[in-house]
Amino acid sequence: MTKLSVVGIFANLDEDALGDVERHINRKTYAAGAQIIEPEADSSDVYLILSGRVRIVNYSLSGREITLEEIGAGGCVGQLSAIDGEPRSACVFAVDDTDVGILSPANFEKVVKSHPSVAWNVISELARIVRTSTRRIVDVSTLGANERVIAEILRRAQQVCDDKGAATLSPVPVHSEVAGRVSTSRETVARVMGSLGRKGLVNKIDSGLHVPDVRRLEEFLSESIH
Amino acid sequence: MTKLSVVGIFANLDEDALGDVERHINRKTYAAGAQIIEPEADSSDVYLILSGRVRIVNYSLSGREITLEEIGAGGCVGQLSAIDGEPRSACVFAVDDTDVGILSPANFEKVVKSHPSVAWNVISELARIVRTSTRRIVDVSTLGANERVIAEILRRAQQVCDDKGAATLSPVPVHSEVAGRVSTSRETVARVMGSLGRKGLVNKIDSGLHVPDVRRLEEFLSESIH
Repeated sequence: MTKLSVVGIFANLDEDALGDVERHINRKTYAAGAQIIEPEADSSDVYLILSGRVRIVNYSLSGREITLEEIGAGGCVGQLSAIDGEPRSACVFAVDDTDVGILSPANFEKVVKSHPSVAWNVISELARIVRTSTRRIVDVSTLGANERVIAEILRRAQQVCDDKGAATLSPVPVHSEVAGRVSTSRETVARVMGSLGRKGLVNKIDSGLHVPDVRRLEEFLSESIH
Repeated sequence: MTKLSVVGIFANLDEDALGDVERHINRKTYAAGAQIIEPEADSSDVYLILSGRVRIVNYSLSGREITLEEIGAGGCVGQLSAIDGEPRSACVFAVDDTDVGILSPANFEKVVKSHPSVAWNVISELARIVRTSTRRIVDVSTLGANERVIAEILRRAQQVCDDKGAATLSPVPVHSEVAGRVSTSRETVARVMGSLGRKGLVNKIDSGLHVPDVRRLEEFLSESIH
């Protein structure tokens, strides 16, 4: 059984405190593809991802699907409704087989209020989401679809850039996943990736997608915009 | 001197606790138009808005300005850097003459960790920002500029809708402010507002912008999308 200590917001809790939280948790397993949170359901539970991977998606007024985030083991979803009591803002699906721990809103609030370190970790996690969202709002408001794809690849490359200025994204980013994340179509991602490949800005290797010169990709994006 | 009790995140603190926070605060006044937070500055202070109004803006890679939010008395800006230690994500300007209380990141963390109610209020405020951002990402990813303007007016009307289904937005929304908020131009907002006016969906009255039938505005938006 996966320990609760994998959960990021509980990172600073000692064994006693973790044992106390464990008593308020219901464990459940979802098969890949299963829906974990549906907006219509009248529930405000918090889901702690113990193993596996989930995708948070939202739908436009016209029904188009927008991927907001993918979250792996240690993450936490569904906290917004537990915090403000409002309806669910999004759907959550299991991408892989996923084990979760489920915490009621009342118990979530109790744990947050009894453990300053948990409160601070929840605050840090929400701050991270706000930063990511802000960047995405600016991108999608001001860049064309092609540039948003390049900006997304660039951001991922910058996060794993080595001291020679190269990066390898491993595994190779899935076109449909990138498309959902930057609000465009899979076809657009495929076209842009093909074009970057022909320019030598990226190339597929055994271990993933190689970006030989991250700075050059940045310059290319900058030239595309101005 | 404005009392600290106007600040939303301190709503549940008693006089003693407020006095304790007061000792860690520096007060400062900014004239309308002054820059309060600049991204280049190496500061992670939190700004508590005691009176007045501020605008949070971000800039695209090509330099276009995007309004993220306007915040009035009782609000709080600059907390992201105090939380994660990363550079400022945006600029903040005083819209009106604005009094602020400035709290260092160390003192902000101390207050949050010593008062569970403050921690919960900070969490609630961040959750509100995440919800607003998510809605905006979905809108800007899937709606055209005209529809985003209508959706913004509709959301504001829904918030103040009376039991007869009518709403008055007071004061009349400023076109440039709406434009910044939905990532379009002032001219587009003016054109859409003119068109809504001619259709009788909105009309200017002494006290503000009147929406005689909020439901009809919602139907009009829905028809524009499909």
